[in-house]
Order: sequence, then C-alpha cells, then structure tokens
Amino acid sequence: MATDPSHRILFEPLRIGPKTTKNRFYQVPHCNGMGHRWPRTMAEMRGIKAEGGWGVVCTEECSVHPTSDLTPATLMRLWDDSDLPVHELMVNKVHEHGALAGIQLVHNGQSVSNYFSRIPSLAPSPAPTETGNSTQARGMDKQDIRELRRWFREAALRSRRAGYDIIYVYAAHGIMTLLYQFLLQRFNQRTDEYGGSLENRLRLVREVLEDTRDAVGHDCAVAFRFAVDELMGPEGMHKAEAEDIVGTLAELPDLWDVNVADWGNDSLPSRFGAEGAQEKYVQFVKSLTTKPVVGVGRFTSPDTMAGQITRGVLDLIGAARPSIADPFLPQKIKEGRSDEIRECIGCNMCTSGDYVAYPMRCTQNPTMGEEWRRGWHPERIARAATSDSVLVVGGGPSGLEAALAAANRGYDVTLAEASHALGGRVLGETALAPLRQWKRLSDHREYMLSKQTNARLFTQSRLDADQILEMGAAHVAIATGAVWRTDFTGIHHRFPVPVSAPELIISPEDIMSGTMPGGRVMIFDDDHYYLASSLAEHLAAAGIDVLLVTPAAEVAGWTHFTLEYEHIQTRLRELDVDMVCHHGIGGISNGHVRLECVYTGASTPVEVDAVIPVTARNSRAPLFDELMTRQAEWADHGIRTVTRIGDCLVPGTLAMAIHSGHEYARNLDAPDPGDIPFRRENDFDTSRIWPEFTS
Amino acid sequence: MATDPSHRILFEPLRIGPKTTKNRFYQVPHCNGMGHRWPRTMAEMRGIKAEGGWGVVCTEECSVHPTSDLTPATLMRLWDDSDLPVHELMVNKVHEHGALAGIQLVHNGQSVSNYFSRIPSLAPSPAPTETGNSTQARGMDKQDIRELRRWFREAALRSRRAGYDIIYVYAAHGIMTLLYQFLLQRFNQRTDEYGGSLENRLRLVREVLEDTRDAVGHDCAVAFRFAVDELMGPEGMHKAEAEDIVGTLAELPDLWDVNVADWGNDSLPSRFGAEGAQEKYVQFVKSLTTKPVVGVGRFTSPDTMAGQITRGVLDLIGAARPSIADPFLPQKIKEGRSDEIRECIGCNMCTSGDYVAYPMRCTQNPTMGEEWRRGWHPERIARAATSDSVLVVGGGPSGLEAALAAANRGYDVTLAEASHALGGRVLGETALAPLRQWKRLSDHREYMLSKQTNARLFTQSRLDADQILEMGAAHVAIATGAVWRTDFTGIHHRFPVPVSAPELIISPEDIMSGTMPGGRVMIFDDDHYYLASSLAEHLAAAGIDVLLVTPAAEVAGWTHFTLEYEHIQTRLRELDVDMVCHHGIGGISNGHVRLECVYTGASTPVEVDAVIPVTARNSRAPLFDELMTRQAEWADHGIRTVTRIGDCLVPGTLAMAIHSGHEYARNLDAPDPGDIPFRRENDFDTSRIWPEFTS
Repeated sequence: MATDPSHRILFEPLRIGPKTTKNRFYQVPHCNGMGHRWPRTMAEMRGIKAEGGWGVVCTEECSVHPTSDLTPATLMRLWDDSDLPVHELMVNKVHEHGALAGIQLVHNGQSVSNYFSRIPSLAPSPAPTETGNSTQARGMDKQDIRELRRWFREAALRSRRAGYDIIYVYAAHGIMTLLYQFLLQRFNQRTDEYGGSLENRLRLVREVLEDTRDAVGHDCAVAFRFAVDELMGPEGMHKAEAEDIVGTLAELPDLWDVNVADWGNDSLPSRFGAEGAQEKYVQFVKSLTTKPVVGVGRFTSPDTMAGQITRGVLDLIGAARPSIADPFLPQKIKEGRSDEIRECIGCNMCTSGDYVAYPMRCTQNPTMGEEWRRGWHPERIARAATSDSVLVVGGGPSGLEAALAAANRGYDVTLAEASHALGGRVLGETALAPLRQWKRLSDHREYMLSKQTNARLFTQSRLDADQILEMGAAHVAIATGAVWRTDFTGIHHRFPVPVSAPELIISPEDIMSGTMPGGRVMIFDDDHYYLASSLAEHLAAAGIDVLLVTPAAEVAGWTHFTLEYEHIQTRLRELDVDMVCHHGIGGISNGHVRLECVYTGASTPVEVDAVIPVTARNSRAPLFDELMTRQAEWADHGIRTVTRIGDCLVPGTLAMAIHSGHEYARNLDAPDPGDIPFRRENDFDTSRIWPEFTS
Repeated sequence: MATDPSHRILFEPLRIGPKTTKNRFYQVPHCNGMGHRWPRTMAEMRGIKAEGGWGVVCTEECSVHPTSDLTPATLMRLWDDSDLPVHELMVNKVHEHGALAGIQLVHNGQSVSNYFSRIPSLAPSPAPTETGNSTQARGMDKQDIRELRRWFREAALRSRRAGYDIIYVYAAHGIMTLLYQFLLQRFNQRTDEYGGSLENRLRLVREVLEDTRDAVGHDCAVAFRFAVDELMGPEGMHKAEAEDIVGTLAELPDLWDVNVADWGNDSLPSRFGAEGAQEKYVQFVKSLTTKPVVGVGRFTSPDTMAGQITRGVLDLIGAARPSIADPFLPQKIKEGRSDEIRECIGCNMCTSGDYVAYPMRCTQNPTMGEEWRRGWHPERIARAATSDSVLVVGGGPSGLEAALAAANRGYDVTLAEASHALGGRVLGETALAPLRQWKRLSDHREYMLSKQTNARLFTQSRLDADQILEMGAAHVAIATGAVWRTDFTGIHHRFPVPVSAPELIISPEDIMSGTMPGGRVMIFDDDHYYLASSLAEHLAAAGIDVLLVTPAAEVAGWTHFTLEYEHIQTRLRELDVDMVCHHGIGGISNGHVRLECVYTGASTPVEVDAVIPVTARNSRAPLFDELMTRQAEWADHGIRTVTRIGDCLVPGTLAMAIHSGHEYARNLDAPDPGDIPFRRENDFDTSRIWPEFTS
C-alpha cells in the first residue's frame, strides 16, 4: 500500500549540517545493555532498525575516557583505537540500509565512581559520586578541563574514522553527564570562568561544541543533546534558563536533540504519562534556532508524529522505546500499514538492560536482543516446510504470540481461549488503571491474527484433554497461564503462613476482576515488581485505606530498573498508602495480621479487613499434565508434540511469556538447538592471551 | 629464615584422591568479579597465589549450563568447548608454580533468573527465583534431572581436559546452589524419590558425586563443598542433619570442603566475628570421615592454622579472603616471616567484586586486580634508578602505603605525621568497636616501615609549606586526608541545610575521638557505606538513644555488596536504633530537626539533642594548594614533584586511599602512562565478527 498522504511529511529528507537524512525518523541515542560487551548483538540490533526505515540510528552513551567508566553498565567506549572495531561494525550495519549513524560521546563526571578503571572521578566541584560507596569526585582544575576537551576532540576524530555521520555533544539526563553538571548550579560551585553566571556555566559546553565542529564539522554533523527542564522548579534546569541556553547557542550545533531530565522523566513509563508528554517542555526550542530539532515522546501514532512536524514542534521524530518495540515502524507507515505497528507499551522493560547489565529485551518485541544470537528478525520468520496444524490452548500473551508467529510461518493455527475474551493475564492486569496501556500487548496480536487467513481464534472455548486429542493438531501448545498463590509462599515464606481467618484473603485476580474490598486492606508484596504497587494504587485511588507490607528493604524494588521506582514512591505517598518494609507475616487470624520483623522476629499485630498476597504463582498445569500421561494416544490422533509455554511452563514477566510463545513457534519443526540455543560472543583467543605481557 | 617448627605441619604434603598437595594451604573457590569477562586479570591473580605458596588454588563458581546464568555477575562458565581457553589459561598459571588447580562446578537453580540466556530457571520444586523480578523457576522433572547429571558429567570431563586436578561437587552457600536446594526441605517439596526423606533429598548429590567420580575420578580428585549449618535452627540445614549427611557420604568424596551458610555467615565480616568463627560448626566432620577436610575462618595466624591441624579440626587450611589480602601468606610462614603477613581486615571489599560485577579489589592489598593489567606484583616492585628522597606528609592509609612502597623501591623516605600516632582516619574509625579489626591496615604498614633502613617516620611533626620547601625532598606526597563536612551537603543536599542551632551538630570525628553526646542523637546518613551504622552501633551500645535517618531507601545500602547489610540491620534493631528512610533534612533549629520526605516534601519535626551528619568530606588541601602556588620555588630546593594522594586528592574508600598511595610510589620516575594507565582485555576482532552468521 502507499503512504497515507498525511504522513508523507515524515518521509521528506532533511539536511543536518553536512549530512542529509532520508526521512524524519530518528532513533535517538539509547542504552541497551549490550554495548562493548556484546558488540555483534548490539550492531545487529542497530542494523535492523536501519533496515526498518529509521533515517538516523545512534549509539548509546559512548565514554571518551577511563575517568568516565560506567561499569557495571556495559555501554560503548572510545578510549583508544582498540575500541574502533566495535564501532565500525555498528556503523557498517547502519550504513548498509542507507541510514545515518550517530554517536553520543559522553563524560559522566560525578555520576560514576569508575569502578573498573579505579581512577578518581571528575566533577565541576568536589562532590560525592552517585554510587553510594562513600566515594567522591575531584573538582576539576584548568588542566583537567583542557584534558577533557582533548578527550572529546580525540573521540570526535576517532568517531569520524569509524564512519559516524552525526557526533553528539551531550548535556542531558540530569546528573548523568559532566557537561550538564557544569550547567547546573547545584553541581557547579566554581568561582572561576567556568562557574557562577550562566555564561560561565555554559562555557565548557560551548567550547566542546566548538572543538567538535572544528575537529570534524566539515564532514560530520554536530548534534547537541540538551535537557531543557529537570521538572524540579528553579533549583534545577528550568524553562527560563533553558531559553537562555538555546537562544545563546542557537546556531552553533547542526542539530538540537532536546528532552527533559532525569531519565525517569524522559523515558516516562506509560503508568505515569502518555504519548507526547514532552511537547509542552520542548516546543519553545524551534522558535530560537533555525537548526533542525529532534525530540521524543514515546511516539507510535503517525498522525501525532506528522502533527509534531506540521505544527512546528519538531523537525525530526525522535524515538528510543518505539524503535525497540517496532524497529520497522517507519517502514510500516511508509507502506500504509501503520495499523500493524507494534506499539511500545511504556513498561520500560528495555531500560532494565542498562541497569541490570544484560542485553536489552522488550515486552512487545520478543526478537529484541535475539537478532544476532538467534537470528530472529522482527518482521521475517522462516516459512514452515509444511502447513501442519497447530492448536494453541489459551489466549494470553504467550498463546497469542505463539499463534501469531506460527501463522506467520504458514502453519494452520487454531487458538482456543476458555474465557469470553483474548488477553489472559493482560486483560486482568490492564483492568488496573496504572497498567492500562499495556493492553497493546494483546490488542496488537489479536488484530494481527484477525488478518491471517490461516488462523482461527475462538473464545469461550474451554478444551479438555479428550477434545484436544480429538482435534488432532500436529502440534499442541498449552498456554493456560498461572494463578496467584494465596498461601503467602514466595521468596520470604517458603511454607504457607498460618491463616485462621481465610475469609480475609483476597487474591490479586479478585481485585483485577472488579472486587473492591472495604475497610483497611493489606497488600503483602513478595513479588517486588509492578503488581503490588499497581493494586495499591488502584485501591487507594478508589478511596480504600491501603497498607503495603514487604519483607524487602523497599517497595517495588525491581522497578528501579524500569525507571518506575521514584514515580511509584511518590504516587503511593500522594495516595496515602502506608508502607512497612522488612516484615513478613507471622499469621492471620480474625481481623488481625501479625507482622514479623525479618531481622529480629519481633511481632506487631495490625488490624485489617482484607489481605491480598502478591507472592508467587502456580502454573495452571493439569491439562498439560493429563496430556503427558496420555502420550500413548497422541499418534492415533496425529499429535506429534505437546508443549507448555509462557506462564504455564513457568510464571514470569510478560516479556518472558511473549518470548516463550515466540520461541515455541520459531522452534516448530526446527532441529534441536542442543544445550545452548544461541550463538555466543566468546572472543577470548589463546593466541592473543598475553600479547604485551612483560613481568 | 627457617620455618618456625610449630608451623612445619602446615607444609606437610597430603593426598587428595589421586592427587597430592604439597602443603596445607588451600585457596578455596571464591568469586572475584573477573571470571570469564576478564580472563587474563583472573588468571594472573590466581597464578600469583600459586606463586605465593598456596598448595591448591581453585576457581570461583563455574556454571555448567546456560540454565544457570549468573549475569550480571561475571563468574566462570563451562557451557561448551569455547569456554576452555579461559580455563586452560588459569590452570597453566597455577601449575607453573607447582600448585593444584581446582574447579567449582555449579548449577545455581532457583537463585538465578537467567537474565542473559533467557531460559527458564530450574528448581527442585516450583518457586520464585531470588532476583525479585516476578520470575519463577520451574520444578524439575525426571528428564531435567537426567539432563542436569549429564551437564555435570560433561563439565567434569571438560574440566579434566582443561587440566584441573580437583573437581568440585558444590552444595553450600544456602540458596545459591541447586544441589543444596535439593537438600533443603524449604526448597525441595518433591514427592518422588528426590524429595521427602533425607535419603531422598540427598539422592541427587550422591548421584552427581558418583557420576563425577565415574567420569574423572581416576585422574582428578572429587571434592564436595557442603555447608553444615545455615545458622537458622531446624528450619534450615543444622547439625543433626549435617551429621547424617557427612556420615552417609563419608568416604564418597576425596575431600570435604565444609563451611556454614549463607555467604554472609561464611565470609563473616570482621565487624561480626573473629578468626576461626566456624570451628564450632565444622569440627564434627573429621570424626565421620577419613577423607581430608578443609574449612575456612579468615585464618591469618599461623599458630591458629597449625592448631586447627594438630587439634584435628581440619586437615587443610582453607582461605579466600586471607589469600586475597596476602597471596604470599604461605611463603611468609615458610620463611619464618609470618610477622610480615598482610592480614585480612574482614571488611569484605573483595566480595563487592562479585556483587557490583567489577574486578575484585582488596583494601589491604592494593595490587589485587592489578596484577595483569598494570603488572603490579604484591611482593615485587621495581627498584628505583635513584635513591632520591621522598617526603610523605601525613601518616594515614595512603601516606603509609606510599611510604612503604617507595621505601621498597629504594627511595630515601621520610614520613611526617602531625598527630601523636600513625594511622590517620584508620585511627579514628577503628576507635569505633565495630571497625576495630581494620587497625591492621595501619599496624601492618607501620611495622613494615619500621624494618626499613631507608624510611624514617615522625609523629607530632606538622609541616608547613616553608618547612617542606626547606626539606627539599625530590618528591613530596601530600597525604593530609579529609574531614567530614558538617553542613549536610552530599548526594541528597547539594547546598547546606539551614541550621539555626549549630551547637547541635557533632562531627563524625568528634565521636571517633571520644565525644559521647547525651539524650537523643540523630545520625544523618547520606554516605551509605559503613560509617553511619558504625557510629550508630557505637553510640547505641553505650546506651545512647539513636535515630538513623537517610534519604535512601535503605540504611547502609552499599553494604549489601560487602555481606554486612543483613548483619547491620539485625544489630541496629537489637540495639533499638530507630531508622527512618526516604527523608532529608529541612532544617535544624533549637532542639528540633525537620525531616523532609524525599518524595512528597512532607515535613516531620523530630526532637533531638545532637545531630551527626555523615554525608561527604572535604579534602584537607590548603598545604597542597600553597605548594602549588609556590611552584617557582621548588627547583631551588631540589623539589621535582608535589603530588596529592589518597583522601587529600579525593575522598573515597580506604581501599582507594591505599591504592592511591601505592600507585604514587609505583609511578615515581615512571614514564607517563598516557590516557589509559592499564592494559585492556579488548578481544573483539573484526576478522571474527560474523563467524557463523546466516541470516
């Protein structure tokens, strides 16, 4: 199909300094947990985005010097020439598809403790680093500043050698970058010409911009990434100061890449904000510069994107998360298939790649991170040799993904869901207001399946083992999900907690299907990700008195990795949710829960009217188990394989469930992958063991 | 010198299955944060221990299969043959010095979420994994158990190919290992022959032991590492059950490596236990087996070690931390130089290598982790070309280390300390009971310096710039340390907090030098490592009412990485220390502190009689600054360099201070190392970029 005329503006080329991008789709720099450690994984991921139509594809942060050492995070490095091959690999992959390659050079200043390099950290003024290990950064003297400028210049020259088209000067994301630290009064307390007035605080940024232009500006575009607002009032970067900065530097960069800080505000989880949430902060920029402006906003609607350009908000549609969820988003819009976009749900599973230090994954896009090591392409999948029948039992996230991927392979797919609607746990979880946008997970798959002629979807179709045998599909996938345990067993309690008042217990599913308990409700969170706090928010917003108890030191601790943590903490407090950490449950009797301190065992009785345990889940396995005991009957019915997938195989995240369903379909009729179902980046080579060692 | 006769028993060889160790010094398996990611760094570190006289040197955990994926930690792997070169490198380094090499094969079961491999985790019974990301492990079926046994067998065979002498079957450290998970009722709720009775729960361990013997037992010793007590009463592993287990398996392994669980009890920080703390738990083992027994206890005293053997507690002296602090501990005992042992202080900085995922460091041993990349040897240091004079101003940790290392290089060293005693901040911090054992840092250096003929130490010798110029040393190191700020600036408060009652403020140094405030004392911790909780413990133990406030989610959060966290939490509660998290300080007025919620800004007044801020430090820089302004006068006095080191350069951990002092001495008269003062393990090779890719 042809491009929708109202979207054609998105495909107009645009000059960026000495370079021209073919369209307005701009993958801004974003971390991925792969970086220099898994370079093939990283480069293939970036290359596929270029293939999917992004006109510009950038790296993540790239450190210019070992005084900026982000260990244990695994981002890019350009410390010396030995780092070049990794970059050349990425640039080549991006250029193959006609996209421009950008690199975000960074010095992280006082945000890092240089755990690997063990060199003292640098800062505008002496201050603790952000790692909480009683370590400070050194206030830079003039010689340090000269050195820093040299590092940036040399990194820019190396970047050009690697083939990059766009080279960033980077002052955004709050505390994360040294140049931003220089801009901010709370970090920059210098009394020389680099501190004090805005002109002074801006001096280093200007020098690095000028140095970069001077070094590579004839050949490469120089971008400036700048956070125009920290959303903390005049104590931080705010509109008035940002206007001064943009007005002052206006034409110096070839491109303005603007956003808000900190990272949790920039990559705002969908639980806390909608598409285009940054417009009100960044819209002023274009009025102060003639240079192109790129910004982000978790854009997945081409109408919204085109509107950003026609309304003069942005020139280029920046994206990190939407390009992760759907690397082919531009191509789909170009081909008039924007209904097929796999829209980012804003869960921020992707950012956990950086925080945990593993290759990024995506809840929506199960191929993310698997492009190189498993050869999974987000839009292409091997046709099956046959059109054998596949029966998927259960229409939750893994069942839907398995059905969709199997249908894409050409199998004849039947999906049977017991309940009245498709979605499985997604339906339940998105009944909680905080998680509403995650419904895109099932909506997208249900829609794509509805377009397949070789897939049939049935709801209200509970199947028993006899019926499944009767249907005689060649392959049967059991995707019947899991149910939350109500006996409190989990990480902290390995055995059920004594309960003499079972009527107090309400399951998470009860709440998700509409139960509204009265009085004081206690939620016990031994799950530590998003559900318990979502339940708390859901209930507290309805006026219910909520007490959230966890044996951990923190409520929702894992959400640090998804940038949700701070937002959750604030919201729960705004909703007057009481929180008690470091406590398990000693027992539950009539009207009382006995809390037990994790460390001392000290007991505290608490009056409650209901208790919701969020601890662990049981796979819904009986159907699978019965089919396994009747394996002797399979052949008679033409059944070759019966396989558990998703939460029925093992309860986990939504990302795991969808990955599991996808893997199932990829592996149908495929050879056994052996013990290691992926290729590894094991580069260690005995012939290079001690290349320079002289002891 | 000759070996002390009472220590000779430590140098008697011992048969371990088909192998013989030359002595009783046994470096038990221990993590190091290097693993498969930095193999040269790891192998050189292990090799130097072998050189230092350890009869056996083992790896850390080595995963046998991608279902046991410890990412983001970087331990060893033996998943397929591509992992062999890393192991061969290590084995060769260990064998070079006549030591035996051991490998600790592991499957981590439900303790890991397989963040990298993305394969469902395995467990005896379905249960959440330990990572807090709402992910569970799959209960293993019989086929899984057969597979697991195959993985262990294949890993054992690969281990033999790599040249290992001792191959571990590993069931210790609490939740960390699948075989231990099978042993424990709270994880193993199986109803088949692998669950229920102890015989059943022990079945898998026995099978893996037998499989390993069968596979490699003729050539390699088979060790069994087993935690005899979890120190949690009958709910966990306890003496009665451990006796049954040892009695049952008695002669099956060639070696018993016994300890207590969890890791925080095994590698007990010195703050919570002394040398030999495990004896009472493990001493029964030898009565139930004729096979050699190794155990640990942070042994650094050769008398204690010899006693362990003569009293029949252990046959081999196991060590992790003492071998990190002093890789040459056996050699020093052998040569009758046990007074020169650099004794482990039990701070557990080393374990942070595993937790943070960086190459391990050691507070006592600044060369740890630098052996390969900087060529630093713990006992050898390049002689200087000259015997130029070096003046070290300040006798704290960095000054002492700089003086010692410079003296070892042959420089003519003078150290001048202003106060009445050497030690600097170590003196102050070790005045707090919890940190007493850390005094070894300064004691060791002071003692070693006292033996040097080319080093002179002066106390009560405060020097001003004129005097320093007058003295005219070729090299001047300024090691004047840092002082704690009392204005509350730190990570949370970037500007001073309004204080209208300054008489309430007490500095950490005041407490460390003996001040005992009365009434209710608030400690404000924005440092997050050990000091605030040590102050709290010190004061509370003296009967003072203590309130510990932090803007973080947890008190002493960084101590997770040093295995101190849980112990600190328990102890502070036992001492009735009140704790308030997520709060900053709004202001301090007469008798009141106004706490401010980090998330909502909500204000809570608290009555206090004193406030101790533990937030950040100021370098004591005036002397250095003055010398820099008088640089023109240096040459006249023969001064070539003036350098800040340690906390005076930048406040940090004790490990950083000592590393800084050591680096200073190593670099004297050395060529400029350029931007990257170490070699890197950059193995990525363009010629091997896409070796097997077929898209």
